[in-house]
Amino acid sequence: MKKIHLQRVAPADIEARSMELIAQELGERVFSPEQLPVIKRAIHTSADFDYADNLVFSADAVAKGIAAIKESCTIVTDTQMAFSGINKRVLEKFGGRAVCFMSDPDVAAEAKARGETRATVSMERAAALEGPVILAVGNAPTALVRACELMDEGKFRPALVIGVPVGFVNVVESKELLLSMDVPHIVARGRKGGSNIAAAICNALLYQASGNARE
Amino acid sequence: MKKIHLQRVAPADIEARSMELIAQELGERVFSPEQLPVIKRAIHTSADFDYADNLVFSADAVAKGIAAIKESCTIVTDTQMAFSGINKRVLEKFGGRAVCFMSDPDVAAEAKARGETRATVSMERAAALEGPVILAVGNAPTALVRACELMDEGKFRPALVIGVPVGFVNVVESKELLLSMDVPHIVARGRKGGSNIAAAICNALLYQASGNARE
Repeated sequence: MKKIHLQRVAPADIEARSMELIAQELGERVFSPEQLPVIKRAIHTSADFDYADNLVFSADAVAKGIAAIKESCTIVTDTQMAFSGINKRVLEKFGGRAVCFMSDPDVAAEAKARGETRATVSMERAAALEGPVILAVGNAPTALVRACELMDEGKFRPALVIGVPVGFVNVVESKELLLSMDVPHIVARGRKGGSNIAAAICNALLYQASGNARE
Repeated sequence: MKKIHLQRVAPADIEARSMELIAQELGERVFSPEQLPVIKRAIHTSADFDYADNLVFSADAVAKGIAAIKESCTIVTDTQMAFSGINKRVLEKFGGRAVCFMSDPDVAAEAKARGETRATVSMERAAALEGPVILAVGNAPTALVRACELMDEGKFRPALVIGVPVGFVNVVESKELLLSMDVPHIVARGRKGGSNIAAAICNALLYQASGNARE
């Protein structure tokens, strides 16, 4: 077997060491102290430094996400992958929970009956939730567009929208729509994003809310 | 609400349209016909064209993955996120299943008792499975290194190893180790990768095995 030289870093310290290396590579660039952990965690999950440039935060978006977490919010995702990636242990400490309606059989049945997409029906489910909601969209631009319509109609008031769908069809447009809305948002401008990025941003907020930045 | 111009693409056609756009952007570059769907699906899940350059395939890696799927393989992942992203419906059509041992309570208990990482114990569980195994590592370089050690000791013979951990500590080294091993492999050389990429590669193989390339 080939000899490889592994860095001797204890498993518990690997994340901290990774964050140091990311900070080094970001160099002299200045980011706001509450946004930096979000940016670093998006880079940590992708090794893609484009997230240092493409993440756009509305005023106080991070503070509003943290406040929602402290008020036992529901985090709504548009994929099971994003749901899986969210640190539920930390979320539950705050009395919160994460949900994904996309594969619920009744959502599929209603979507079929109405000739709508599951993403559309899922967003309507999200709008009907009680208490503060963080909406984290990492996949479906249709979900993001429907959420914006519901907000425009005054039927949905999320505490924060994490708008990071990935892809090539209507993705950029859906994010530009969100950027124009009067709702707290964190957006990965352009085509990049994904369920991993959505989960990473949620976790960055959770760790800041815990007072354990784990940058 | 801002007016946006969405492309009129039926939901069922969005993936096909995305793959067309990716193919256009890849331009005149020539890829082997069995590798191309894997490359395109990695780009589809990340909007990151670096995967056109960093994915490395051992000889017949794709064919061996497809053969394993047709022989009702077990796909072992190192994260719940990658597990969530795999199309289990298609996998189950072939009599296969996906598993992730990382959050099993008995794996955690054994790891603690032995002073090992959960990733190490998980790989030992994978090595003990009957039937063909596709190992998909999207997160933990320690898992990949332990899997290579088990292979070197003759204790683990996966049909295919998808080695796409992401990150900054021992990630590059773990992939270079896998690249040196005499085992069928698909590797994202460098720091990039992730659970989404691991799942995307599995799905690309599943769709090819189904004869529905869904490129």
